[in-house]
Amino acid sequence: MHLIIDGYGGDSQLLAEGAVLEKLLDEFPAQIGMTKIAPPAVYRYVGSKPQDWGYSGYVVIAESHISFHTFPARNCLWADVFSCKDFDADKAIRLIKQAFALQDVQAQVLPRGFEFMEAEAEPAEERISA
Amino acid sequence: MHLIIDGYGGDSQLLAEGAVLEKLLDEFPAQIGMTKIAPPAVYRYVGSKPQDWGYSGYVVIAESHISFHTFPARNCLWADVFSCKDFDADKAIRLIKQAFALQDVQAQVLPRGFEFMEAEAEPAEERISA
Repeated sequence: MHLIIDGYGGDSQLLAEGAVLEKLLDEFPAQIGMTKIAPPAVYRYVGSKPQDWGYSGYVVIAESHISFHTFPARNCLWADVFSCKDFDADKAIRLIKQAFALQDVQAQVLPRGFEFMEAEAEPAEERISA
Repeated sequence: MHLIIDGYGGDSQLLAEGAVLEKLLDEFPAQIGMTKIAPPAVYRYVGSKPQDWGYSGYVVIAESHISFHTFPARNCLWADVFSCKDFDADKAIRLIKQAFALQDVQAQVLPRGFEFMEAEAEPAEERISA
């Protein structure tokens, strides 16, 4: 399951604090039932336009990752929560919205790459129904 | 632009080498016209089933990121190439396919989070046409 969030109308001070993003990346995986396999990494970036700067951060969780890119001067962020396991997307959206006081969130859930898991699940289902 | 790749039928030895993924993450951004802002990070993970193990790798590029998760025992991988800038998706797919000898690649291109950029671009276009 791959949850994609484009968030708008956020608090520019929160978006401009690398420590806010680092704390979120550190605590967020456990809040949605995931396990970190490494500490979060957060980098400040500066784009080609003056208003394009912010923080890029990610944390690797078992078989998956969570990433953020913040744009304080634009009051927005992009987030990806990508996991082998299902998780509570509504809770994930709520936590991210709160962390940066986002007013508008556009979320997409993208099923992907799980063909082999579905193929494995079929015989088990047949056995259950037999 | 967010290119999402689910690749199947890859070479399990290549997928099982963290160094192969690290080299790809190091060289791939420049090959598609992007700039790293930090060295790549690669982690070995072990999932809940014995066949679920592999490498998760990540590199942060200006305003964007590239991530991979390999599954050597399943001959597959998941990759995300996410960038503010447009890039040559066909070239990106070809390079990833070659690196792990993938037989089948399912790719999706997801436009996202560029509302503010489109809003900025409009007046410029009006000036050009005036």
